[in-house]
Amino acid sequence: PIDAARLWRMLMQMAEIGATDKGGSRRLALTDEDAAGRALLRQWAEAAGCSVAVDAIGSMVIRRPGRDPHLPPVVMGSHLDTQPTGGRFDGVFGVLAGMEVLQSLNDKGIETAHPVEVAVWMNEEGARFSPPMMGSGVWAGVFGEQEILDKVGQDGARLGDELERLGWRGPLAADHRSRPFAAYFEAHIEQGPILEHEGAQIGVVTGAQGQRWYEVTITGQEAHAGPTPMRLRRDALVAGARVVDRVNRIGLEGGEEACATVGILDVHPHSRNVIPGRVFLTVDLRHPDDATLAGFDRRFRDETQALCDAAGVTVEISEFWHFPSTPFAPELVQRVRAAAEGFGYRSRDIVSGAGHDAVYVARVCPTAMVFIPCEDGISHNEAENIRPEDAERGCAVLFEAVRQTAG
Amino acid sequence: PIDAARLWRMLMQMAEIGATDKGGSRRLALTDEDAAGRALLRQWAEAAGCSVAVDAIGSMVIRRPGRDPHLPPVVMGSHLDTQPTGGRFDGVFGVLAGMEVLQSLNDKGIETAHPVEVAVWMNEEGARFSPPMMGSGVWAGVFGEQEILDKVGQDGARLGDELERLGWRGPLAADHRSRPFAAYFEAHIEQGPILEHEGAQIGVVTGAQGQRWYEVTITGQEAHAGPTPMRLRRDALVAGARVVDRVNRIGLEGGEEACATVGILDVHPHSRNVIPGRVFLTVDLRHPDDATLAGFDRRFRDETQALCDAAGVTVEISEFWHFPSTPFAPELVQRVRAAAEGFGYRSRDIVSGAGHDAVYVARVCPTAMVFIPCEDGISHNEAENIRPEDAERGCAVLFEAVRQTAG
Ligand SMILES: NC(=O)NCCC(=O)O
Ligand SMILES: NC(=O)NCCC(=O)O
Repeated sequence: PIDAARLWRMLMQMAEIGATDKGGSRRLALTDEDAAGRALLRQWAEAAGCSVAVDAIGSMVIRRPGRDPHLPPVVMGSHLDTQPTGGRFDGVFGVLAGMEVLQSLNDKGIETAHPVEVAVWMNEEGARFSPPMMGSGVWAGVFGEQEILDKVGQDGARLGDELERLGWRGPLAADHRSRPFAAYFEAHIEQGPILEHEGAQIGVVTGAQGQRWYEVTITGQEAHAGPTPMRLRRDALVAGARVVDRVNRIGLEGGEEACATVGILDVHPHSRNVIPGRVFLTVDLRHPDDATLAGFDRRFRDETQALCDAAGVTVEISEFWHFPSTPFAPELVQRVRAAAEGFGYRSRDIVSGAGHDAVYVARVCPTAMVFIPCEDGISHNEAENIRPEDAERGCAVLFEAVRQTAG
Repeated sequence: PIDAARLWRMLMQMAEIGATDKGGSRRLALTDEDAAGRALLRQWAEAAGCSVAVDAIGSMVIRRPGRDPHLPPVVMGSHLDTQPTGGRFDGVFGVLAGMEVLQSLNDKGIETAHPVEVAVWMNEEGARFSPPMMGSGVWAGVFGEQEILDKVGQDGARLGDELERLGWRGPLAADHRSRPFAAYFEAHIEQGPILEHEGAQIGVVTGAQGQRWYEVTITGQEAHAGPTPMRLRRDALVAGARVVDRVNRIGLEGGEEACATVGILDVHPHSRNVIPGRVFLTVDLRHPDDATLAGFDRRFRDETQALCDAAGVTVEISEFWHFPSTPFAPELVQRVRAAAEGFGYRSRDIVSGAGHDAVYVARVCPTAMVFIPCEDGISHNEAENIRPEDAERGCAVLFEAVRQTAG
């Protein structure tokens, strides 16, 4: 029901903005590249006769009116920002599949009862400004607007200042109470290997696993790498290294569905012949079962403390971000499943390993997601890739689920 | 024989330049702070009637003439640059003790046969620009002048450009063949705990232990920290962490005199929810015995390779810097020992755990060093501290050894 060639053209054109040497994309949230991506989308939206607006926290909304202006919109969406060395499809696919649905509704002259919208959420990745999923989080009431405006990025920029600079402090309320959705659908690449491995063409996402993110600061004693005997050292990096290995072991021993990652580790004072006096690192623990994840939390805290005590260094652990395992709305999940079946696509139920804007939106409105396979399960990598047929199938399922829901 | 109060005043005044919140000093090589330190020293030197000149690689020379202008100088020296979070005495003590010796020779109206000089070597620490001991290394012919001019710092600056900017590309040849020394003495804080622990007041330095520095780059595969199963990961940081722990173990198992340190570790792409695809780290291995150090080298290379193979990541190891164990000149070492005895100071022989400019100078001229204790053996730390009595004793020994040598 959709124009697969047009969708692929949009994907490839968007990928030119912030294109990297290695075939990926770099459009960190609230940078000039992020803005250029939105400007391109805005052209397509306006050419399709849709109105475009921005909310107070910088999320962009593209609207195709429905028959009844009093009904809340059925919304599709995702994000256009990327990781520092990101791929061409993470987030982008969901936004452009939504844009393609709007254009296909136009092409077919389909009127819907509800307005149909595409949301481009502000800063989903959480790479430059952390945590992730900020735009959807503010809209859903998870974060306060001011709290987010005051966030400072890895490069020292204040989020609110970047919004002003880009003209993204829009007039729409970033608040689900004054701007509710009838339903929310997010199409996304799987970002993992399961669908490809099992030959499934569509992932019917039943929910997202829980996540706990931490910041860990280890303090030892700076000293000279030469004349300081090994047994007198309090080396913050040696302790930090053991924590990294232990976090990995918690993941490895936590069963097939466990994930545990250290993505950032900074050493101070960062000199070749100085025993590191301080290490900062981030930890990301995940599991679909909240009780299991709570067990990881205890094990991580206890073993980190014990490792640091044994190394003669002190440690501070703070939980930086957390969301529990999130089920999606069964009736919408069933609509996605049925749409895939209707087209004869091989589908399977799947739990999302990543957080998505859908996770926050799901707290305040019925929500579902559609996954498509990605090559070798690789994402958050410049080599991230998908096949045009899979993009087409995912977009078709999205179209069908939205059409039915929008009445 | 020296003016201890004047020496301490100079030390405290120098410490005000680049003073840090925590009582240390930050005068990274070839920064404005480094230049301000030298400008202060130049004032003292000129007030003492000495001439001041700079060589082609930015080392500064203060000269008190001798009776015979044809004799090569007897030189004292060390450095004024510091670590990023350095102390007030590392290097500075040797330079200012030398300056105090020149002033005491003046006060006493002592004429020497040889000229007596104080050398302030360019970039000893190797923190901003690596490796360490650059000024002495060029003078001694260890490094080529152009090679060093082209070094790029952690902050991206080119060393040669910084020299030009500061006006430090001086007219003296940075070459021991055209500018030989009769002898070289370097006074320094121990930077380790041995003298303090044994109640010794003076360390008679018989030589310096060997060092091998490496750069290690580990390459895995970036992927999403959520949907990527643990068993499919190729996490460069997990492998890097195991290397850090293994390097530490090589040090711990290498006997009392072994040292092994990772001072720098950088993670790429440095995002909380991305499995690190690349890690860069530095390794510093030391031992007084060259054969033992060669054994550490083999073990480090073999075990790093094995750990990385097991983790499914690739690794490149390159030796970045290396100097063998360096004995000092027995007749000068004996002169230091005798001077300490003459004053009734408790002294002991000691091997330097750190590299010093004296290590490169020793390759081309008779060299010795004088160590004084530092508090808790702590150095390369803002808390680095010494007692005024120890500064006085070290300077007195330096005075006596230089006076005898300069004739
Ligand atoms: N898809 C995605 O990367 N979302 C950010 C939150 C997460 O790391 O799961
Ligand atoms: N004293 C000093 O830090 N020298 C630099 C070379 C080394 O780390 O030993």
